[in-house]
Amino acid sequence: MLDLLSKVTAASGFTHASGVEVVAAEVGQVTLDLPKKRELLQFSGFFHGGVIAGLADHSAGAAATTTLAPGKVAVTVDLHINYLAPANGEKLTAIAKCVQSGSTLCVVTVTVSTTSGTETSVCAIASVTLRVVDMPRMP
Amino acid sequence: MLDLLSKVTAASGFTHASGVEVVAAEVGQVTLDLPKKRELLQFSGFFHGGVIAGLADHSAGAAATTTLAPGKVAVTVDLHINYLAPANGEKLTAIAKCVQSGSTLCVVTVTVSTTSGTETSVCAIASVTLRVVDMPRMP
Amino acid sequence: MLDLLSKVTAASGFTHASGVEVVAAEVGQVTLDLPKKRELLQFSGFFHGGVIAGLADHSAGAAATTTLAPGKVAVTVDLHINYLAPANGEKLTAIAKCVQSGSTLCVVTVTVSTTSGTETSVCAIASVTLRVVDMPRMP
Amino acid sequence: MLDLLSKVTAASGFTHASGVEVVAAEVGQVTLDLPKKRELLQFSGFFHGGVIAGLADHSAGAAATTTLAPGKVAVTVDLHINYLAPANGEKLTAIAKCVQSGSTLCVVTVTVSTTSGTETSVCAIASVTLRVVDMPRMP
Repeated sequence: MLDLLSKVTAASGFTHASGVEVVAAEVGQVTLDLPKKRELLQFSGFFHGGVIAGLADHSAGAAATTTLAPGKVAVTVDLHINYLAPANGEKLTAIAKCVQSGSTLCVVTVTVSTTSGTETSVCAIASVTLRVVDMPRMP
Repeated sequence: MLDLLSKVTAASGFTHASGVEVVAAEVGQVTLDLPKKRELLQFSGFFHGGVIAGLADHSAGAAATTTLAPGKVAVTVDLHINYLAPANGEKLTAIAKCVQSGSTLCVVTVTVSTTSGTETSVCAIASVTLRVVDMPRMP
Repeated sequence: MLDLLSKVTAASGFTHASGVEVVAAEVGQVTLDLPKKRELLQFSGFFHGGVIAGLADHSAGAAATTTLAPGKVAVTVDLHINYLAPANGEKLTAIAKCVQSGSTLCVVTVTVSTTSGTETSVCAIASVTLRVVDMPRMP
Repeated sequence: MLDLLSKVTAASGFTHASGVEVVAAEVGQVTLDLPKKRELLQFSGFFHGGVIAGLADHSAGAAATTTLAPGKVAVTVDLHINYLAPANGEKLTAIAKCVQSGSTLCVVTVTVSTTSGTETSVCAIASVTLRVVDMPRMP
């Protein structure tokens, strides 16, 4: 599971270019890291909200997909994210949990935290609705 | 207004690296373009949902900020995005309209479309709540 | 269409008890009214946010269902609502437009306004994701 | 705290008419119950989605307000709710937790469950953004 997720993450332009790292994956829960780099920041030097949303989105898709039968993948229908604090740490960590897994739809909640030295704090929470579709062939 | 927005967009790591282009800006409404490139795609070759959310987020912040007094800037509190269709075109275009501008909060709606050749279709809609804060000094 | 929608609205405990009125219905767009009464208000005397969300929800379901084949109905998967101003008028009016109608999912946007005398102003906007299911037999 | 919340809940038209009961309240967390009755149902005989949203909204406002200085109250800016299962039990229970409390804004997450006999299951989750304002005089 970790292998497949790592492969998909590395094969996608955005997650590969961003530098998303798969930390852990089990059925229904996935943890992703994203280390800081200049291309991911907004004008104050914190992680850009769009990058945080992108990490939440990717982790949600991964968490939902781990609950599905082989050959199925979950794609995002809609995403709601609350930004709680500036993401001013050295990396982002998204922990995504699938709270509902159906044959048509999944719902995932995500907590995104940011770590600076030894201090970790939550910077965003998200809820994501996803649809179950046949896995497209990877190009 | 167009100048300031272009400057902020170019000065930010994420929007600069992504290649976001400011097409138009007036009080309460902003149009941004984002041409396709590999680093912005998901594994099927369409624009990644996180990139679309990021463009929506940036355009919302810009549209809200155009309504504010000098020295003030709008930062995203929360964002909700519905993905309506795969973003399979050559570029994304986000049109953001500020539907409420208060001294504390703003609300912006965004329509994101994708263009392939001469055909343009809506691929996502978003609603964004933003908070009015003092403009941070640009690093 | 207007007849069926009026029948469903009157047959449901909540919409019947609230006093929801079907004003107009065509394929993909529905208008509902809800006159003020004490049981619908919060402690300041304005329409309660939950009532506004309920009207938005019901109008979204109606608008989506008008686009479906007979025997199908759209049920809400998730709803996002932004409250823009106190709903301090004599009635609420929800106008719901179906912006996407698929075989599995629909997306509807709703504008809720409040009217006081001759003055009407928008008090909330919502976006709603719905799922297409077989119409349950009405009890 | 329990007393004040019970008083506000009973004094409001919607929550009084619905029959919302305050079960527990501490700083940052509130539990509300809503027993089933005909006026709260949709056409299949389950709790109406608008009623669930209304309960989530009210519990979020209560949870946020418990964290504020006396004389301040939290009013909803926007609400996002995911419906996970039909609310087919004899009552609804909303547990709202304030995950951020600032001088201007609060964010609250809500879990709504439904109980049928001895069985309780989650039927909806919500995230709510609220704004801190001066408590209006109660009419």
